[in-house]
Amino acid sequence: MKNKSIYDIAIVGATGAVGQKIMDVLEKRNFPIGSIKLLSSKNSAGKKINFFNEEIIVEEATPESFTNVDIAFFSAGGSVSEALVPAAIEKGAVVIDNTSAYRMDANVPLVVPEVNETDIKNHKGLIANPNCSTIQMVTALKPIQKAYGLNRIIVSTYQAVSGSGKKAVDELDKQTRNYVNKEETKPEVLPVAGDKRHYPIAFNALPQIDVFQENGYTAEEMKMINETKKIMHLPDVKVAATCVRLPFFTSHAESIYIEIDKENINPTDIWKVLESQEGVVLEDDIQTQTYPTPLSAMDKDEVFVGRVRKDLDCDKGFHMWVVSDNLLKGAALNTVQIAESLIKNKWL
Amino acid sequence: MKNKSIYDIAIVGATGAVGQKIMDVLEKRNFPIGSIKLLSSKNSAGKKINFFNEEIIVEEATPESFTNVDIAFFSAGGSVSEALVPAAIEKGAVVIDNTSAYRMDANVPLVVPEVNETDIKNHKGLIANPNCSTIQMVTALKPIQKAYGLNRIIVSTYQAVSGSGKKAVDELDKQTRNYVNKEETKPEVLPVAGDKRHYPIAFNALPQIDVFQENGYTAEEMKMINETKKIMHLPDVKVAATCVRLPFFTSHAESIYIEIDKENINPTDIWKVLESQEGVVLEDDIQTQTYPTPLSAMDKDEVFVGRVRKDLDCDKGFHMWVVSDNLLKGAALNTVQIAESLIKNKWL
Repeated sequence: MKNKSIYDIAIVGATGAVGQKIMDVLEKRNFPIGSIKLLSSKNSAGKKINFFNEEIIVEEATPESFTNVDIAFFSAGGSVSEALVPAAIEKGAVVIDNTSAYRMDANVPLVVPEVNETDIKNHKGLIANPNCSTIQMVTALKPIQKAYGLNRIIVSTYQAVSGSGKKAVDELDKQTRNYVNKEETKPEVLPVAGDKRHYPIAFNALPQIDVFQENGYTAEEMKMINETKKIMHLPDVKVAATCVRLPFFTSHAESIYIEIDKENINPTDIWKVLESQEGVVLEDDIQTQTYPTPLSAMDKDEVFVGRVRKDLDCDKGFHMWVVSDNLLKGAALNTVQIAESLIKNKWL
Repeated sequence: MKNKSIYDIAIVGATGAVGQKIMDVLEKRNFPIGSIKLLSSKNSAGKKINFFNEEIIVEEATPESFTNVDIAFFSAGGSVSEALVPAAIEKGAVVIDNTSAYRMDANVPLVVPEVNETDIKNHKGLIANPNCSTIQMVTALKPIQKAYGLNRIIVSTYQAVSGSGKKAVDELDKQTRNYVNKEETKPEVLPVAGDKRHYPIAFNALPQIDVFQENGYTAEEMKMINETKKIMHLPDVKVAATCVRLPFFTSHAESIYIEIDKENINPTDIWKVLESQEGVVLEDDIQTQTYPTPLSAMDKDEVFVGRVRKDLDCDKGFHMWVVSDNLLKGAALNTVQIAESLIKNKWL
């Protein structure tokens, strides 16, 4: 591609929660936009969305939509990506896909810029954005792995309903109002909108995110396991995950246990490497009860780490608590950072 | 003690949440009560409480209160136990203490009847009831340990606000109403009522339960670590815990990773030993999305286990999800079960 200073972009899934967040992030970071196409399903086409002080009419996404598009952000579900990403690439767009459709494809880079930015260089028209719970974990663990090696990860997650889409957010809101108004409604969305059985989410904890796989793990847990190995280039690192949906709206939190390679490392050493990592903020002081929470991380760009402490039995073992806004670094922000890297490094 | 068929009991902390639950459980299980004294601080003395269809006036707890008491249930905080338990023992009562005051005292049995009932036999007038999050974990792990050995436990908890007392329950209720009514109030109770800093609990997750220790762990985490070793008689088992307070009212959930001794064990083997354990209910079927949740375990006596699966990297590693009502098996029920064991085995 010739050297441009502004870029023609398309956003597929512009009316969805992540699509909207992508627009917010593009505005906030003053992304060098030439033209913009907001694309959606037939149902949402015709809607008007304000973007960079301009009213834009949402169009139906078709294979033809991607003519003269430099960068196409996809965030409308895996089936839409499977249907339209090949056409977008063929028309010459570089696609950044926020769905799970192509993440584990060996030909598709899966990227968190702080962790494996140079993988972007090898793209063949498509870069995949990882799962939200994976992004914040690898962002926090990368500097530790770089300094001290990494053999094992055991993570239990505390995940916000917004990771399951607008209907899940509405369901928590509704059930919360039901509690206050002493009403009752039937759960219809969570844990997984399309699955057979639904549980209340208000004042509850659901140990299922996404559908179950034959091996007893959920798809969300397998994403964390497989994507972590791919992004970190550590095919042999041991990873185990338990993913749990909880009654809060924004930010995922993670209780992470790791085993590093090096002996005699202390929490203060871990602090140092975390503090040196762009995109990571250390919030860890037990004297002042300082640690991140889902509410404190909301609307912020960074990955926050607290409660760093050494395992009491294993010299190479450490525990920590990692929190980030699942719609920002976990989705929209990381997507835009990939686009910025494409431009900055002339990898378009 | 001579063979009696009914027993004179006292409840210290009768106006508190656990004290009330102890009365509920005594009634429900038709405990063989002769006389009953309901005791409290000076502030709550004079209140009337209905018990076994009789109105009983709460009296101030003093060293003299324990004359002619066979069994005294203490549940009014560590400092009250420290002040009055010695007097109660001296007066001839057998004390079952629900606080942390004497749990780690080598002379005091710390008991979950399903796990180490025979330890009760060695009591010297005092038996300690373990921490709520510990009780449900050891109840679930005991049959596995008995069948296959146990080398390691890594647990992340999902704990209800009722574990932090009535003020914490009221705070979650209030903040939930604030959300619906678009009001705001300052957090004043959680994570720890007496600690310096407070965070909102509604729509949030707080990685602090009880105060911090010098080693970076919270008191709650150290309780889980130390009490587990003592109850299970496994001083060398590796235990690590991360304890998190969440916005639900009742039941604690736990994401538990264990390493057993034996090779080539499968989840179905674990299921079998769990099913054979009294007090444990297996709720584990991914086909029907069956697993326990805090709401489903509420008001039930048992410890519920689901999501049992083998670690993908470690043949001896297993993950599971354990849920129980923190006020019942986690507190009042276990306390009453200890009393029943004292009677049944003639260990009073």
